[in-house]
Amino acid sequence: MTEALFTANNVWMMICTALVFIMHLGFGFLELGMTRQKNAINIFFKNFYVITMGILVYFIIGFNLMYPGFGEGSSGILGFGGFGLSLPDGAPIDYAGGGYTYWTDFLFQAVFAATAATIVSGAVAERVKLEGFMLFSLLYVAFTYPIVGSWQWGGGWLSDLGFHDFAGSTLVHSVGGWAALMFVYFIGPRIGKYDNGKVKAIPGHNLPLAAGGVLILWLGWFGFNGGSVLSGEPSATSLVLVNTCLAASAGALVAFLFSKFSFGSFDLTMLMNGVLGGLVGITAGADQMDALQSIVIGGFSGIVVVYGISLLDRILKIDDPVGAIAVHLICGIWGTLAVGIFGDLASWSQFLNQLVGVGIIGLFCVLTSSIFLIIAKYTVGIRAKRDYEIQGLDSTEHSMDAYSDFQTK
Amino acid sequence: MTEALFTANNVWMMICTALVFIMHLGFGFLELGMTRQKNAINIFFKNFYVITMGILVYFIIGFNLMYPGFGEGSSGILGFGGFGLSLPDGAPIDYAGGGYTYWTDFLFQAVFAATAATIVSGAVAERVKLEGFMLFSLLYVAFTYPIVGSWQWGGGWLSDLGFHDFAGSTLVHSVGGWAALMFVYFIGPRIGKYDNGKVKAIPGHNLPLAAGGVLILWLGWFGFNGGSVLSGEPSATSLVLVNTCLAASAGALVAFLFSKFSFGSFDLTMLMNGVLGGLVGITAGADQMDALQSIVIGGFSGIVVVYGISLLDRILKIDDPVGAIAVHLICGIWGTLAVGIFGDLASWSQFLNQLVGVGIIGLFCVLTSSIFLIIAKYTVGIRAKRDYEIQGLDSTEHSMDAYSDFQTK
Amino acid sequence: MTEALFTANNVWMMICTALVFIMHLGFGFLELGMTRQKNAINIFFKNFYVITMGILVYFIIGFNLMYPGFGEGSSGILGFGGFGLSLPDGAPIDYAGGGYTYWTDFLFQAVFAATAATIVSGAVAERVKLEGFMLFSLLYVAFTYPIVGSWQWGGGWLSDLGFHDFAGSTLVHSVGGWAALMFVYFIGPRIGKYDNGKVKAIPGHNLPLAAGGVLILWLGWFGFNGGSVLSGEPSATSLVLVNTCLAASAGALVAFLFSKFSFGSFDLTMLMNGVLGGLVGITAGADQMDALQSIVIGGFSGIVVVYGISLLDRILKIDDPVGAIAVHLICGIWGTLAVGIFGDLASWSQFLNQLVGVGIIGLFCVLTSSIFLIIAKYTVGIRAKRDYEIQGLDSTEHSMDAYSDFQTK
Repeated sequence: MTEALFTANNVWMMICTALVFIMHLGFGFLELGMTRQKNAINIFFKNFYVITMGILVYFIIGFNLMYPGFGEGSSGILGFGGFGLSLPDGAPIDYAGGGYTYWTDFLFQAVFAATAATIVSGAVAERVKLEGFMLFSLLYVAFTYPIVGSWQWGGGWLSDLGFHDFAGSTLVHSVGGWAALMFVYFIGPRIGKYDNGKVKAIPGHNLPLAAGGVLILWLGWFGFNGGSVLSGEPSATSLVLVNTCLAASAGALVAFLFSKFSFGSFDLTMLMNGVLGGLVGITAGADQMDALQSIVIGGFSGIVVVYGISLLDRILKIDDPVGAIAVHLICGIWGTLAVGIFGDLASWSQFLNQLVGVGIIGLFCVLTSSIFLIIAKYTVGIRAKRDYEIQGLDSTEHSMDAYSDFQTK
Repeated sequence: MTEALFTANNVWMMICTALVFIMHLGFGFLELGMTRQKNAINIFFKNFYVITMGILVYFIIGFNLMYPGFGEGSSGILGFGGFGLSLPDGAPIDYAGGGYTYWTDFLFQAVFAATAATIVSGAVAERVKLEGFMLFSLLYVAFTYPIVGSWQWGGGWLSDLGFHDFAGSTLVHSVGGWAALMFVYFIGPRIGKYDNGKVKAIPGHNLPLAAGGVLILWLGWFGFNGGSVLSGEPSATSLVLVNTCLAASAGALVAFLFSKFSFGSFDLTMLMNGVLGGLVGITAGADQMDALQSIVIGGFSGIVVVYGISLLDRILKIDDPVGAIAVHLICGIWGTLAVGIFGDLASWSQFLNQLVGVGIIGLFCVLTSSIFLIIAKYTVGIRAKRDYEIQGLDSTEHSMDAYSDFQTK
Repeated sequence: MTEALFTANNVWMMICTALVFIMHLGFGFLELGMTRQKNAINIFFKNFYVITMGILVYFIIGFNLMYPGFGEGSSGILGFGGFGLSLPDGAPIDYAGGGYTYWTDFLFQAVFAATAATIVSGAVAERVKLEGFMLFSLLYVAFTYPIVGSWQWGGGWLSDLGFHDFAGSTLVHSVGGWAALMFVYFIGPRIGKYDNGKVKAIPGHNLPLAAGGVLILWLGWFGFNGGSVLSGEPSATSLVLVNTCLAASAGALVAFLFSKFSFGSFDLTMLMNGVLGGLVGITAGADQMDALQSIVIGGFSGIVVVYGISLLDRILKIDDPVGAIAVHLICGIWGTLAVGIFGDLASWSQFLNQLVGVGIIGLFCVLTSSIFLIIAKYTVGIRAKRDYEIQGLDSTEHSMDAYSDFQTK
């Protein structure tokens, strides 16, 4: 490993870190735009909290819970490398065979960790109690995310088994998605969403910002998937970016065509969710697929998103204002299983490995989410007061108004 | 070529690809902000369509139409390398002499291709029929853009002639601009724009987002021009960035000073268009100019934009809501000709080469645009229904409202 | 220095330049969102002016005033290397020992220079006379910023003394902050802000964009601090990024907790200012601290911001609509002094060096600001006319309305 190659690799990884970081703006704009004006401050407050708390908690405990052996050896089921950031004596700064430094590794992983918690924040928007969300997401980022991560990326038992999840269709997106599902189950729908068994659409207040958020998320995925190569290796990184963009494009087109033929109009939010579904879907296997397989995986994600959102909203009556559960949980599962169906690893045994990983991680997330939700419920509370929710969380929790001086003629 | 240099080069090209990608957010915000609220969803729908369709169509056919010989040999007037993405047996992944990989090349070119189509979308905003726009832009990205590109960047006859267009003042911006002009000519102005021979200004609904879009476009130009070096070669890439930023700055200052002295107020949209005009103007020769020449080219683009927009809007009565034709077509032509006037290549014979390139590409774009517009007109239609346009395209085509829940006190 | 390492270094520096550039969008959104709708066009006009004027003026005079000796030798107190951009004969393009090229150096420094002026624009928003702001910021970028910069980064007397300011807590942020303070002192508060001795809160019109602006600024700080390593050296750059993000996170959490316990509600703008305070605070010593020290510095910045803003607004009655003086000046001073308290350089003599630097730079900024403000006041004027301010600067100075077509039901 020459100094030059180490530098080039590390530059790539730092840029990817910056790109994953800016996904938090994408999530913020998306959630903000898809929800009501009266909760806009609350949305961004949760987003800022998640990224800042996430980085600090990952520094204090998460990083060393996820990578207990400093990248070496198997961590089995649970390990811990000590608090804070400290390279063991004699350990080289050129980590991962020269792919990046110890510091780059930490920061790249830290912005990933915060992503998992952000997924939850969209699903529970507009009625979650702030303190409850804060406590839950702190616990989830501190324990559930890094422990699951240690099983695979930390070299633990899932990795030994042969499970493959390149950039986290399951390890990030489904982990976030399961928590979102459980949290929504615990707090129930927004007031007025399912009155008298009727499904009421609650439109957002700023779709242009939501649409901008999706493009920022797509940009962020250049770093999310491209950085998961863990070096700047030219062939692998660039193939991953091509597959990522083709899957997003296919997801978008399939989603809008299916929603057009199913529901009759050119639905921008379905197209947006198709982009995101395609991105989540390709995340597990972006390193394994060729271009056509990526299009198939992304395209099918587009179908999954359209009918997944309808299923959750209309049949199961699960109130998810931004479609996070369909996008991150269902497409995350689909993308993980797809590694057993398409690409270089495809085989029955691989498919079974993928199923095992999806299943056990799902169980662990559901279990720990439930524990954390019960803790939060019986301490700080998890659902906003009824009159706070009706009046809006901005004026009641934050004493602010997002567009205070905004006037129209 | 060492592995390290190849990696550093490819990292740069992947970043530039990401930066050109995010230009689609810039175009989206710009178009959205400069048009009326009732068509906001329609604007973003077109933008999402263009980038996702553009990548897929460029994958299926465009890339191999533009680069039929895998970067080797002359493609003459028309060639085709086969469908999809497949590196020929034995072809090295370190494409372009180690500047980037085959995959990076594809994706960088794909996001360029989508840019050409996006230029059209702004000019025809608020009255184009969605299906007509979709069919036209698909054909234009599939055929016109890559065939023109093959003449120069694919090593074809224009390249043999000695035409120089570094990053696409003509090959991207004018190609988009000609289509915009023809499309506007075919569909005519928005209802109410030129009633009884009077020119009516139709102000946009969200100038802050439009202004943000311009800064995002400028950021994207770091990749658009910087990536057109096709490697990370330090001297060439950094000179290009300096020239790009100086031209944008000069365009901005000249445009606002001229509009201040001509029309009396500090016009933000003219300043914004001055930035864009300067950027388009320097694009053809960003590798050939020194700093002062870049300032001259950018500054003159600022004048071109101010009077070009007035000319088109007030004299020619060409209704272009975002000023795309003045910015991309006229400044694109100016920038391409400027390569014959300033910089290392300046000479009479070069100027003639530039004129020939501009002229023949213009003819080809006008011709193919007309054919595609006629096809679209007599199949799916190209102009929205009168009552749809009056009511707004969002509620009629998309059954959505961009700011549904937005309230003011 | 191999070609590959030079390329990798220069790629990093060009990316950091792009990231600092996009901070101007962050500043724009932040200022826009925190102020009233009637001045939104004016806000963005100032921002576009500052970045475009800044780049040109830095090209004409600033760069060679700041780095008179082309990076070699001491510039003492004042030196000048001649107008424009021209590498001396025989000088190598691989500047700074191969860290980047001459062109990259210029552009990276140019976007920094514009940042200092932008800080002023937020503090004087909503009542500054446009021509006065334009003249003042031109003079400040042309003279004050580069002369101060030459003392330290240009190898002058402060650098010889042993002052340490890694990325500009003082050289950029306080330099901007002092000018902001003086400008506010000269023009006074907005009409209605302090009527009859009562402090009136004047809420902004678009907090979601302001919040987005803060995240964009944080992203930009990856380049602001990361690029100040002046090469892509893996260990130094990545440590700097880790420290930067930890300080921002700590600033955010401390600021919202302190404001929650002091004022009772979850205040998003305090959290946002905590992020920015933490970023400004760590900027002087991001290369010297370990992770825990960065958290302490950032966290204390969060306290500084909360009480600094209160102090300025309520006690001193200094009207700063965006909190720029507390964030950039006070946290800038704190961060600079912290280099003498924490980290590898900590010592009494270092602390004294830091105090000397802060003090003399402060005096110089106050002095030159006053001169430029007096010049501006008695030529073009510095305060908008009373009825212009009341009616809003957009309709009076720009004949535009930011959200002209915006309607609500």
